Amino acid sequence: MTENSLHALLSDVKNGEIEIAHAIEQLKHLPFEDLGYAKIDHHREIRTGYPEVIFCPGKTIPQIRGIIESILVKKNNILASRASEEIYEAVKDLAPNIEYYPEARSIFIQQVEIRKSRAKVLVVSGGTSDIPVAEEAVVTAEKLGCTVERLYDVGVAGIHRLLANKHRIDEAQVVIAVAGMEGALASVVGGLSDKPVIAVPTSIGYGANFGGLAALLAMLNSCASGVGVVNIDNGFGAGFLASTIIRQIELNAK
Amino acid sequence: MTENSLHALLSDVKNGEIEIAHAIEQLKHLPFEDLGYAKIDHHREIRTGYPEVIFCPGKTIPQIRGIIESILVKKNNILASRASEEIYEAVKDLAPNIEYYPEARSIFIQQVEIRKSRAKVLVVSGGTSDIPVAEEAVVTAEKLGCTVERLYDVGVAGIHRLLANKHRIDEAQVVIAVAGMEGALASVVGGLSDKPVIAVPTSIGYGANFGGLAALLAMLNSCASGVGVVNIDNGFGAGFLASTIIRQIELNAK
Amino acid sequence: MTENSLHALLSDVKNGEIEIAHAIEQLKHLPFEDLGYAKIDHHREIRTGYPEVIFCPGKTIPQIRGIIESILVKKNNILASRASEEIYEAVKDLAPNIEYYPEARSIFIQQVEIRKSRAKVLVVSGGTSDIPVAEEAVVTAEKLGCTVERLYDVGVAGIHRLLANKHRIDEAQVVIAVAGMEGALASVVGGLSDKPVIAVPTSIGYGANFGGLAALLAMLNSCASGVGVVNIDNGFGAGFLASTIIRQIELNAK
Amino acid sequence: MTENSLHALLSDVKNGEIEIAHAIEQLKHLPFEDLGYAKIDHHREIRTGYPEVIFCPGKTIPQIRGIIESILVKKNNILASRASEEIYEAVKDLAPNIEYYPEARSIFIQQVEIRKSRAKVLVVSGGTSDIPVAEEAVVTAEKLGCTVERLYDVGVAGIHRLLANKHRIDEAQVVIAVAGMEGALASVVGGLSDKPVIAVPTSIGYGANFGGLAALLAMLNSCASGVGVVNIDNGFGAGFLASTIIRQIELNAK
Amino acid sequence: MTENSLHALLSDVKNGEIEIAHAIEQLKHLPFEDLGYAKIDHHREIRTGYPEVIFCPGKTIPQIRGIIESILVKKNNILASRASEEIYEAVKDLAPNIEYYPEARSIFIQQVEIRKSRAKVLVVSGGTSDIPVAEEAVVTAEKLGCTVERLYDVGVAGIHRLLANKHRIDEAQVVIAVAGMEGALASVVGGLSDKPVIAVPTSIGYGANFGGLAALLAMLNSCASGVGVVNIDNGFGAGFLASTIIRQIELNAK
Amino acid sequence: MTENSLHALLSDVKNGEIEIAHAIEQLKHLPFEDLGYAKIDHHREIRTGYPEVIFCPGKTIPQIRGIIESILVKKNNILASRASEEIYEAVKDLAPNIEYYPEARSIFIQQVEIRKSRAKVLVVSGGTSDIPVAEEAVVTAEKLGCTVERLYDVGVAGIHRLLANKHRIDEAQVVIAVAGMEGALASVVGGLSDKPVIAVPTSIGYGANFGGLAALLAMLNSCASGVGVVNIDNGFGAGFLASTIIRQIELNAK
Amino acid sequence: MTENSLHALLSDVKNGEIEIAHAIEQLKHLPFEDLGYAKIDHHREIRTGYPEVIFCPGKTIPQIRGIIESILVKKNNILASRASEEIYEAVKDLAPNIEYYPEARSIFIQQVEIRKSRAKVLVVSGGTSDIPVAEEAVVTAEKLGCTVERLYDVGVAGIHRLLANKHRIDEAQVVIAVAGMEGALASVVGGLSDKPVIAVPTSIGYGANFGGLAALLAMLNSCASGVGVVNIDNGFGAGFLASTIIRQIELNAK
Amino acid sequence: MTENSLHALLSDVKNGEIEIAHAIEQLKHLPFEDLGYAKIDHHREIRTGYPEVIFCPGKTIPQIRGIIESILVKKNNILASRASEEIYEAVKDLAPNIEYYPEARSIFIQQVEIRKSRAKVLVVSGGTSDIPVAEEAVVTAEKLGCTVERLYDVGVAGIHRLLANKHRIDEAQVVIAVAGMEGALASVVGGLSDKPVIAVPTSIGYGANFGGLAALLAMLNSCASGVGVVNIDNGFGAGFLASTIIRQIELNAK
Repeated sequence: MTENSLHALLSDVKNGEIEIAHAIEQLKHLPFEDLGYAKIDHHREIRTGYPEVIFCPGKTIPQIRGIIESILVKKNNILASRASEEIYEAVKDLAPNIEYYPEARSIFIQQVEIRKSRAKVLVVSGGTSDIPVAEEAVVTAEKLGCTVERLYDVGVAGIHRLLANKHRIDEAQVVIAVAGMEGALASVVGGLSDKPVIAVPTSIGYGANFGGLAALLAMLNSCASGVGVVNIDNGFGAGFLASTIIRQIELNAK
Repeated sequence: MTENSLHALLSDVKNGEIEIAHAIEQLKHLPFEDLGYAKIDHHREIRTGYPEVIFCPGKTIPQIRGIIESILVKKNNILASRASEEIYEAVKDLAPNIEYYPEARSIFIQQVEIRKSRAKVLVVSGGTSDIPVAEEAVVTAEKLGCTVERLYDVGVAGIHRLLANKHRIDEAQVVIAVAGMEGALASVVGGLSDKPVIAVPTSIGYGANFGGLAALLAMLNSCASGVGVVNIDNGFGAGFLASTIIRQIELNAK
Repeated sequence: MTENSLHALLSDVKNGEIEIAHAIEQLKHLPFEDLGYAKIDHHREIRTGYPEVIFCPGKTIPQIRGIIESILVKKNNILASRASEEIYEAVKDLAPNIEYYPEARSIFIQQVEIRKSRAKVLVVSGGTSDIPVAEEAVVTAEKLGCTVERLYDVGVAGIHRLLANKHRIDEAQVVIAVAGMEGALASVVGGLSDKPVIAVPTSIGYGANFGGLAALLAMLNSCASGVGVVNIDNGFGAGFLASTIIRQIELNAK
Repeated sequence: MTENSLHALLSDVKNGEIEIAHAIEQLKHLPFEDLGYAKIDHHREIRTGYPEVIFCPGKTIPQIRGIIESILVKKNNILASRASEEIYEAVKDLAPNIEYYPEARSIFIQQVEIRKSRAKVLVVSGGTSDIPVAEEAVVTAEKLGCTVERLYDVGVAGIHRLLANKHRIDEAQVVIAVAGMEGALASVVGGLSDKPVIAVPTSIGYGANFGGLAALLAMLNSCASGVGVVNIDNGFGAGFLASTIIRQIELNAK
Repeated sequence: MTENSLHALLSDVKNGEIEIAHAIEQLKHLPFEDLGYAKIDHHREIRTGYPEVIFCPGKTIPQIRGIIESILVKKNNILASRASEEIYEAVKDLAPNIEYYPEARSIFIQQVEIRKSRAKVLVVSGGTSDIPVAEEAVVTAEKLGCTVERLYDVGVAGIHRLLANKHRIDEAQVVIAVAGMEGALASVVGGLSDKPVIAVPTSIGYGANFGGLAALLAMLNSCASGVGVVNIDNGFGAGFLASTIIRQIELNAK
Repeated sequence: MTENSLHALLSDVKNGEIEIAHAIEQLKHLPFEDLGYAKIDHHREIRTGYPEVIFCPGKTIPQIRGIIESILVKKNNILASRASEEIYEAVKDLAPNIEYYPEARSIFIQQVEIRKSRAKVLVVSGGTSDIPVAEEAVVTAEKLGCTVERLYDVGVAGIHRLLANKHRIDEAQVVIAVAGMEGALASVVGGLSDKPVIAVPTSIGYGANFGGLAALLAMLNSCASGVGVVNIDNGFGAGFLASTIIRQIELNAK
Repeated sequence: MTENSLHALLSDVKNGEIEIAHAIEQLKHLPFEDLGYAKIDHHREIRTGYPEVIFCPGKTIPQIRGIIESILVKKNNILASRASEEIYEAVKDLAPNIEYYPEARSIFIQQVEIRKSRAKVLVVSGGTSDIPVAEEAVVTAEKLGCTVERLYDVGVAGIHRLLANKHRIDEAQVVIAVAGMEGALASVVGGLSDKPVIAVPTSIGYGANFGGLAALLAMLNSCASGVGVVNIDNGFGAGFLASTIIRQIELNAK
Repeated sequence: MTENSLHALLSDVKNGEIEIAHAIEQLKHLPFEDLGYAKIDHHREIRTGYPEVIFCPGKTIPQIRGIIESILVKKNNILASRASEEIYEAVKDLAPNIEYYPEARSIFIQQVEIRKSRAKVLVVSGGTSDIPVAEEAVVTAEKLGCTVERLYDVGVAGIHRLLANKHRIDEAQVVIAVAGMEGALASVVGGLSDKPVIAVPTSIGYGANFGGLAALLAMLNSCASGVGVVNIDNGFGAGFLASTIIRQIELNAK
């Protein structure tokens, strides 16, 4: 049922050409999804400033270009995740102010101003090798409006480095803990903090690490409460989840 | 939006107390789900004769009794799967014509006549130990309106038993192949037939069988095309899927 | 026992040179397989129009060329699945009307007309990245005689897109649901439909996706009944299974 | 180093009986952990109203009684999770106002008033069998100060039930999605909402469910962003994580 | 086609009432499976002395009794594997000379004399706990006609115990190596011998043993060549496989 | 203790320069391994005609050349398995009569005549893609003295192809069944034969095949008795195991 | 070759009744294993005070009684691990001074004095539920001669408890870290210490813990160097390994 | 709190400008971690001669260069593990005396003399292909001050090679057993020795080896006591753990 046919139906009601009971019956069976679609779309428009996200893997360059072009028209911000340098090179002509974050493998095009949150996200990471995933979390959260700080290379093999920065954990509202190997960082951070902790296992490691499975299982079994886990290497997901929490803090602070 | 409020809205349209454009806007945002709910419900009522299904595990006896009682009121048929003898004993007073199939662990209460299909389902099973799962498929498909035949104990270790019954495979429209151990039955049946084959791995086996994983993987990797797989021991699912195929055959035969 | 020796035996029976009982004994032990082979072969010939299928992986170019050439002689249609562009280039000289579907990685050579079914298959897919697997299902089903429609990019993260197209599900006789990541599409489609649903998990995803295992397990555990699952990325298998169902519908519609 | 010896050291500094440099050296090597311990203890005391939590499995009845008694002295609230009815019977004499939630398998003893949050947690669950895990989340979050609402039995096999309650998702600040089988609920809820979603896979299912692994992997691979996952059946962890988010909302709302 | 109808057909050929070509055509399509069945049956009868085997798990007592009774009539030997003491008690009235081997969990009823092989099977086992599986292999091989010797408790943690018995390995024609834990016995035995070695992993162990998976994988990856592996705890299978080898040795020795 | 020092000791005994008891004591503690080593070496020399085997993966070209050269000196036959074409090119100058089997990835250098067995090995394989593994088994068994026959492309999806060749199974003493995908071939062959069956799972397949795991588990769980399994793709191991069986048949036939 | 026959051979040498060269030949082939056995036995006797160990699972009460009785005769100490209370009750009459450690599930019978080491083992454990495994390590190490200290309930969720006891880690020569859940304790202890750390994963946990797999993988992937891992719940193995290290320290301290 | 501010605080105490109680309060909350950090640093300085270790994977060339340069300034020894030839080429200009061990993939720069231990480590390996991992263990242990010996190519398929070298095991204080395939070497070595055994599974193998999982599980389940396991291919970790044991032996030998 298109908007036109809905208009026709209501006209018929108005003109008495159709019984109200009969109209109700038709409306009941109307393909609600179209209306629902519009509704959600409308709803989305309210959230101005939120970027539309493109997950690049498995998409061809022409597909990615096409999606970017269609969002450019809508004047929304655009965040492309898991974007290789090659993808960036292939799309960078689409917008003069396109930004590329190579470590985070993220492309960003700003068309609307981002209002930064007062509440803060702290991204903590274990080793140097975990930094790309941590950076993906940082860039994602920032582009979704969060104020983000970094605390890197504080793995539990040298626990004093983490302890020496406990005040920084205390100052954040949400903590993202990024770690590979055995993923113990999430438990230690969770034990040191009563903030929501988002744990990101990374695939850094080898052998019985099984591509991040060791860290993933460790984080799911954390003896510290208050830890939510995202997929292996999913810095984007962690940044996104953090932004939903920060958003609730901001919305309810008004 | 309840039916009442919808009536009120349409009355306002009729009476000119609200602009059609405005009404459209309201309808667009109306919580479509309620209507959708009603619609599907209505739709379901058309399929008279179809039992409502209760999956028993994890439900308490009082919960199961409650659900049965509410369906009894609606005068629909009831099929309770994975129902232990204990459950049957605890609910058998609810309906005088309640039936219990101990091997299939299924309870059935008929309130509406089932029209049997002309198209046939053949349930083929490997060993004696697979029979309970096979029977679950049989009872499920029968109560969902299928004409069902059994061909049991024709495992591939004695391939001649299966070959000797090839004509029975040829006479069915849908074949369900139930097997544990290495699950090779599905491939052999699939190779002998150009009918849709629904493969049910069972947990019969031990050691590196890993609770039916061996048969499951084998069936998913069948070198015969045209095989769809359901969960381990899921005789119910196989019977149900068969019934949807039979139903399409019957519907389109008219 | 060749046809010649069988003829000799029967001549001996006719001429009384051998006792009937003795002939029976010989026939009992006759290598039935040769006859069986012929029989099935014969049976296969009836199904004119059905393509012979070549699964390319693990076969050398000369092997593939040889198989194609031998089928060309038989005047059957040929469908080569999992055929890389390189394979296509290496065999395209074999038939002037050879077709290549790059997304579906399928080669088709038509030698006999395909009669399209009235019954319809709807191929539903989750994300853009799932399209190659979906296309493999589409091409396979079409070349096996099905009328196929596509409904792509209706993943559950934006459930309204799927709901808005529920009527298309309603209009099909068989639905193929193709999805990677968490594979929830199969459950939602299964819940919206009482048609047979063939679920195809794809390997799209990363980390704890484990090459499609996440979607595979999800689909096998679908809370919606009536879902049969094929192997990860097995668009071919889904298309083939759909064609066996459609075939039964068509055969029984006469 | 106790507070006494620290006092003595400082007195010595004050009296000039020890060089400042020497005192620094001692302080540098002082077992900082004791102070750290005290500090955290002190810090914990500020969070009055927060229960101390006892994870019961693997603890003997005498151990559990001992821990409860020691907390009773401190006048803190006590939440014992995974507490069987047998444990409850064995400890219920310890406090007259002890409460037991059998579905949630939780014991609570209130000694300090809990101030309820304005921000709300909505606990959504798939099937009847998931309710015990959902209730564990509810009781945990409530005892940790959250206002909690329930939305049960809205699994994706009947998507309309969930859609019909979308407004309830919209009214909460945090959503907990509890589901077994294929765990698709988390993705659908995540797609319908821009709130933080905490996904709890349950072990409800059989066969290729592998004790909740299917739902766990599905939730980790959710195509909806903004989903954090806790361990299988970990209703407690979900409730706790929700409470840390709610707490940040409340703290920053002042 | 029954034997009767085959007789009728041949009579028709003899009497000239049917063309030979026509008869050939009919025979070509004759349901070979029935003849095949008979043939194989016949073939089986030649192997007199071989027991018919009943795998007990998943079969009910009445089913097992029924199968035993039907074999008793045929005057074949009967070997029931995985037979609990309870099963033995329930069937022991069926034959006066029934034997029960509790460690091997095997029932045997002799109706035909077993001719013992000259070639020998040596069953080697690692620890005391592996003995039940080893005994299952011993009893199976013996009842299938093998001369069997035992060499138990020679695990690799005390390699001298095995080395001190190398001559016993040298004197056998087939070696069965039964071991749990890490299953290294198979490799060491394989390295010491140029006989066929059948490796049986047992489920003895705990933790990362994963129900025998550790030993299974070790045996499949043996650095010693000439090792064939059977399922975890499958003493029966090892004994059976050994008997097929011994049988070939005996048959070809004549 | 070298042979020299042993000679000296015995001379001392002979000359009465050392007490027998004392000599016994020394001999008791003599590093038996050296003698043991010699003994085994000696034993090996008896088995003239047996090739020494080189497993190439993980070895450098110089290492492989060195090993070949040292065996050439000993005038033994040499079989190098898993030898890439590159390796062959790098070593082919070492012996004028070097042979390379590219499908089997095997190098062979004959220095001693191989006496062919009368007993036969039949290598059965499922699909065209399994041939390289099957060929590895063929070449290995042949070079170890077996008479080998091939029966390829008789996968269970077209069971008649296998049945039509049952007599070839009957004529062999040992059967090797090579199959990927779901590995059902081993069960069907095992069911058709009472010969020892060596099952070789191959890694042919994709998705839930998990690199041959599906076929491996299927073969370990074969419902046909008398099947021994080797590692995935381990054609060499199957050929070797077959040769140990054939060897026992030949040795005991004299 | 027994000692008697060796004596006879040497006598023959002495008397010139056999050539030395011939005697060497015989000795070369002498079943070295028997001598080797004696040798090792002798060697074992030197290690007086070391208990002989009985691993109880899978052994019957009579078997355990028999083994204990045979060791009692040898006057060695006896340590029975994984001994249930039931086993203890069934064997306690065998020795008046038998000791039972119920938490450690260990039986000990002292017949020879144990000399305690100066070097110390510290057993650190995460939670109350890990204590049984920790106690198994303690009892094992103590009975093998180690001086052992306990540091329990210092899991990483409250890292200060561990830090406050760092000096105790500093005072030990070997540290055993026992932890379930995510097993992070091993990494943190490893990071705080430059002593050998033996990590024992426990099966404490649920869901994605998979019976201790999470802790096991975490410990194997520890970002702290110097950590050796034993099997899940293997307190005995950790105690034993610690004792071998302590023993080397003691032996080399002299 | 820096040392300066601590000095200021103590001066204030001395001068009476701050109450002792107040100072205690400040010290209690002082960021102990900084002091703790210094303390550990100080402690580290004592261990002169110990190299600082760089784990190369996941680090960029500039990062590795930067880390090396900063350690060069501190005049510590440097050990870079998992360093490819490419990395070596890119950093070799940083120090004239840089050494590269290509098999061990290790870079070493000596700035301080290494005092070799009297106690010895023996590195035992199974096959030629395991040598790179074994060499990583050798180089690591040597650079950490251990005297190391090699015993290579003594896999259990030819057990005599190992037995012939038992005296070398007896002469070492710590044994590292490196093996791929089925990893049985660790059990055999553990059975032959009462020294601490560090087991290193390697990823050598294929098929059901699953990248070293087979050897890993075997080693964790070793029937020989006294075996500690490190991650797959983790020669570095084994060498490091060995050095911690050797170090305790040396320290306590004084």
